Amino acid sequence: MQLGMIGLGRMGANIVRRLMRAGHECVVFDVNPDAVATLAAEGAVGASSMADLAAKMTGPRAIWLMVPAGLTGAVVEELAAELEADDIIIDGGNSNYRDDVRRAAALKDRGIHYVDAGTSGGVFGLDRGYCLMVGGPDVAFSRIEPILATIAPGASDIERTPGRTGDYTEEELGYLHCGPSGAGHFVKMVHNGIEYGIMAALAEGLNILNNADAGLRDASHSAEVAPLEEPEFYQFDIDTGKVAELWRRGSVISSWLLDLTAAALEQNPTLDGLAGRVSDSGEGRWTVKAAVDVGVPAPVLAASLFERFASRGEDQFANKVLSAMRLQFGGHQELPTGDMLEAGKGEEH
Amino acid sequence: MQLGMIGLGRMGANIVRRLMRAGHECVVFDVNPDAVATLAAEGAVGASSMADLAAKMTGPRAIWLMVPAGLTGAVVEELAAELEADDIIIDGGNSNYRDDVRRAAALKDRGIHYVDAGTSGGVFGLDRGYCLMVGGPDVAFSRIEPILATIAPGASDIERTPGRTGDYTEEELGYLHCGPSGAGHFVKMVHNGIEYGIMAALAEGLNILNNADAGLRDASHSAEVAPLEEPEFYQFDIDTGKVAELWRRGSVISSWLLDLTAAALEQNPTLDGLAGRVSDSGEGRWTVKAAVDVGVPAPVLAASLFERFASRGEDQFANKVLSAMRLQFGGHQELPTGDMLEAGKGEEH
Amino acid sequence: MQLGMIGLGRMGANIVRRLMRAGHECVVFDVNPDAVATLAAEGAVGASSMADLAAKMTGPRAIWLMVPAGLTGAVVEELAAELEADDIIIDGGNSNYRDDVRRAAALKDRGIHYVDAGTSGGVFGLDRGYCLMVGGPDVAFSRIEPILATIAPGASDIERTPGRTGDYTEEELGYLHCGPSGAGHFVKMVHNGIEYGIMAALAEGLNILNNADAGLRDASHSAEVAPLEEPEFYQFDIDTGKVAELWRRGSVISSWLLDLTAAALEQNPTLDGLAGRVSDSGEGRWTVKAAVDVGVPAPVLAASLFERFASRGEDQFANKVLSAMRLQFGGHQELPTGDMLEAGKGEEH
Amino acid sequence: MQLGMIGLGRMGANIVRRLMRAGHECVVFDVNPDAVATLAAEGAVGASSMADLAAKMTGPRAIWLMVPAGLTGAVVEELAAELEADDIIIDGGNSNYRDDVRRAAALKDRGIHYVDAGTSGGVFGLDRGYCLMVGGPDVAFSRIEPILATIAPGASDIERTPGRTGDYTEEELGYLHCGPSGAGHFVKMVHNGIEYGIMAALAEGLNILNNADAGLRDASHSAEVAPLEEPEFYQFDIDTGKVAELWRRGSVISSWLLDLTAAALEQNPTLDGLAGRVSDSGEGRWTVKAAVDVGVPAPVLAASLFERFASRGEDQFANKVLSAMRLQFGGHQELPTGDMLEAGKGEEH
Repeated sequence: MQLGMIGLGRMGANIVRRLMRAGHECVVFDVNPDAVATLAAEGAVGASSMADLAAKMTGPRAIWLMVPAGLTGAVVEELAAELEADDIIIDGGNSNYRDDVRRAAALKDRGIHYVDAGTSGGVFGLDRGYCLMVGGPDVAFSRIEPILATIAPGASDIERTPGRTGDYTEEELGYLHCGPSGAGHFVKMVHNGIEYGIMAALAEGLNILNNADAGLRDASHSAEVAPLEEPEFYQFDIDTGKVAELWRRGSVISSWLLDLTAAALEQNPTLDGLAGRVSDSGEGRWTVKAAVDVGVPAPVLAASLFERFASRGEDQFANKVLSAMRLQFGGHQELPTGDMLEAGKGEEH
Repeated sequence: MQLGMIGLGRMGANIVRRLMRAGHECVVFDVNPDAVATLAAEGAVGASSMADLAAKMTGPRAIWLMVPAGLTGAVVEELAAELEADDIIIDGGNSNYRDDVRRAAALKDRGIHYVDAGTSGGVFGLDRGYCLMVGGPDVAFSRIEPILATIAPGASDIERTPGRTGDYTEEELGYLHCGPSGAGHFVKMVHNGIEYGIMAALAEGLNILNNADAGLRDASHSAEVAPLEEPEFYQFDIDTGKVAELWRRGSVISSWLLDLTAAALEQNPTLDGLAGRVSDSGEGRWTVKAAVDVGVPAPVLAASLFERFASRGEDQFANKVLSAMRLQFGGHQELPTGDMLEAGKGEEH
Repeated sequence: MQLGMIGLGRMGANIVRRLMRAGHECVVFDVNPDAVATLAAEGAVGASSMADLAAKMTGPRAIWLMVPAGLTGAVVEELAAELEADDIIIDGGNSNYRDDVRRAAALKDRGIHYVDAGTSGGVFGLDRGYCLMVGGPDVAFSRIEPILATIAPGASDIERTPGRTGDYTEEELGYLHCGPSGAGHFVKMVHNGIEYGIMAALAEGLNILNNADAGLRDASHSAEVAPLEEPEFYQFDIDTGKVAELWRRGSVISSWLLDLTAAALEQNPTLDGLAGRVSDSGEGRWTVKAAVDVGVPAPVLAASLFERFASRGEDQFANKVLSAMRLQFGGHQELPTGDMLEAGKGEEH
Repeated sequence: MQLGMIGLGRMGANIVRRLMRAGHECVVFDVNPDAVATLAAEGAVGASSMADLAAKMTGPRAIWLMVPAGLTGAVVEELAAELEADDIIIDGGNSNYRDDVRRAAALKDRGIHYVDAGTSGGVFGLDRGYCLMVGGPDVAFSRIEPILATIAPGASDIERTPGRTGDYTEEELGYLHCGPSGAGHFVKMVHNGIEYGIMAALAEGLNILNNADAGLRDASHSAEVAPLEEPEFYQFDIDTGKVAELWRRGSVISSWLLDLTAAALEQNPTLDGLAGRVSDSGEGRWTVKAAVDVGVPAPVLAASLFERFASRGEDQFANKVLSAMRLQFGGHQELPTGDMLEAGKGEEH
């Protein structure tokens, strides 16, 4: 079938390619004409504006937006002005599901269907397919299902879950109608929240391995820091890259994120050149806020988010407050001044 | 080559089977004679005691222990009395790596080599192979490498990590010499610590999804509990089993633990009959203590451990203390008593 | 000066009493006529409706609302209809500061000043005074400052902070103009967020003390739970009530919340009869969401909130997911079935 | 009565002074002769060695050690060699309670009593008194009780806990016999664990306040960081020093640690010159390990400890792992390269 695509960054372009490979027709637009030209050369119908894209499509239209979350609102508005009742707008970006709920309601009055399609898969999606978490009205979902089925991985060679028999269901093919507008991005949001938690679990564990040689290092420490108490148990010089690779092989924690970790450590075993200032995008934050809203505990997901904040120095003022309090106790953080027997170099309170 | 196996529970027996399939010779013992008889019927040499097992083996021996961690110390001692210099004891169970360090030192005087082999793979290992994290002296590792290579998954059909070329390395075959005695169980310990974190991330995320319908439920709440503020954003009735299955398909969080989750929810979508009292074994605890010892932050791993404690009611006294404090504030936890305009039914302090 | 008070619950009534003691005139209203009558008998001017209250006051008016957060919006609207330009509405309840921002903007058009006054002090405030965190326009703050100064504790006998000399400042008298509308409740929100953290720190610590006798208890445990490894170090039968009292005396953690804890444990040393289902009101939640919004780590505040959720069983589905995963590993959570040497009764993966 | 004091650092010297003020006789030793001379000039009996100290005392002796935890073991051993049966050694430093258990057992054979006295109070203890958490045999506790009662704050002017009547109990006078050897330092350990939690709660809350102006700052952000979504709600420029002072006045979180915070912010409102690298001594670590051992959740205490580790950069490798994983997703952490409409500048997976 025919799909419009607005936003031809890496993911948008690859989705177009994946669709064209399967025989779908794509009409494409990006503010960067080079991006349009590239895909046009590969067989897509290029458009020079949203209006042009709408004009070049046959109604009822289905148009996929793959634009940065911050721009989605404006693009939806501009695009909707060119559309007609029964057209479908699909937001494949990383919007907050709350915006979906609002936008769907606003567009409903004009008869335009709004579908949110949380899309996971990263740079590997072109070949591997994208996992699609979809929200929106039944009528729109049914109409675009051929598109979704093509973008998704399909059954692939992933072993079937025990107990599942008969025809493959949507979710086994890699796309799922999760509920009304917003449900798709809600599920995607939680997916990313979980991703933060898994990433943090791996990172913390590897950090412990990386410090398993603590007992081999110089034991001289400021008296302000608790010394290693049993150095004999921390004498291991462990190659974290080899361990990550090993764990891919039959261990309980084998996972795609572990695969990425092994690849990263293979390329750069000491992780030199990385600053370790970890970014976060909205989903991890929204997940924690959703947990707070509905009143369910999410300490692991929250901790993984807060670790990212701290990695960027956002804990600085809090830490200064702690140091300032400790100074008030009576001179902590200053180096010991002599008496071998002087008490209270630690927290003598 | 020849291997002795002591402890013929599920894992011990399956390792024996996997070895025999590949042509290795196994001499086996368990306190349960039926377990011995079963494997003898499958081709193993049965032994009636540790002494008998030692007698039936050709020196220098290699003997694998697959017994509960609590018994390993006693079994090592009893077995060592039957062994000679240059024999190898391999502990494949879930010992604390600190015990390995101690045991290796004790056996070294008698010329017996001690190898710790952290073993991951669960009930699927017979066919899938076991991931082996190995610590011990080089000489012992080299001698038992054929055994390790057979127990491990081998190269299998797992996609090779980008950047790796040429011959497969140990870790790509699923076993790794991590360092001296204790290093194997240390790495296994951290593996399980990470496992706790990943499991918790998945569980917390699914719990949020499971409560995405909070806005559809009865809004009447005790004034003591913060009400849902924006019910319009929590109107989703999400099928967590379908979502778990979906995420197996091309999502960033695809993983073996997710596969298990999908299988569990396929079998029992509402998880009826489960008490949700989650056990923990030693490794999660030891991981947190190791993080504390070497001074690296592990909030995610610790939170996942503490959630398990709380699931078993071990937070009870702390929670009572909180309730007791709130009562002191002035009658919290009692129901509102009337005045529609009375302030401060919440935390009015 | 004259103050109107709407909402004569415990806090509203006690604030009126504290004001009257200092010679201020109070005009009071509550939907419960008995509450009005009680205060009228103590010297207040009773009103039978908001309109009546407005009529009985001299302009420009200042009216304090002490009503449950859920009702504040409706009360503000109804009251504002009776007011004139330059009147002041003070919200002394537990509103979300975001509502203050919205309400202040709405009322500004009509010339009505909106002041938010976060009020801490609980049932002890009548005598001890209330700590007041105030947001709103300068002109309104200045006008009501005599009222604020009376409600607040004043200089009292609290030792002056080193470095402070000369006249007492607002904050030393127990009230502070924190900024524009919303700033007062924002500071109050964070105050309560901190309160949750402190309460949790005390509760967790006392729980550890309460379990310091773990080594004295029956060691028989399911194999599914990690056994206590060094019982010799957990042989203490500690009286938590005595310890709480002790810590009030010169320790670093002496605090009002500790005072309450000591009182609670004095009254009910075993905390019998408490369910340990800990409520939460909005502030703790809003604090975590604010931390997420501005991107600063708040793991302690978040953990203390999540512990409350878990205390009410909101971790149930997550825990069932964990148990279900463990069952998938191969029969965990079922009791050991026999072989003394059978391996892997714990997490044998 | 007579007390020997070894270790004349700030705390040791001040305890001697407090005892002498009350008429007790003190025999003092430190490796620094100046420290001895100073106290001798104030009325103490100076000693030139541990042997000299023992010789100058009347048996049965009671000798208090106030030396750094790392030296206690050696000092106890050297001192014990000079003592006789029925003498008492009191360890007032910050020892691990496990060492107390071991030392008490070792000294018991020689008839020497070992008392551990966890001591809180910091630099203010000279006048305010020290809070004493004491473990050891009854006979020793009874004998040194006059000393303990003098060092402790006594009843002071702290308001009595409601429900307590009649004679003041030990704990109301600021010292408590918590149990056998080790119990004192166990309680002190948990005290410090709680202290970490309270400090962190205050620091996190103040950090949120300090960022309440996030909406006033430049909104330009890397696309890799989630932008502030509702800047209109973060327009507050809050003076954290004034707020800390305010909260001392009748708020629920008033506490000695808040007093210190207010003092610190009064002296240095912007906390300039502090690095925010927060030290930790053993107690916080031991508390978390004890919680893990006995299986009770302590997420707040653990989080506060881990924040300190992170403040010193110990999260560095973990953060690099996270950044490395994100690079694998496809170029995260590199700046956006152009297309305004390019999707997925955030986490496009």
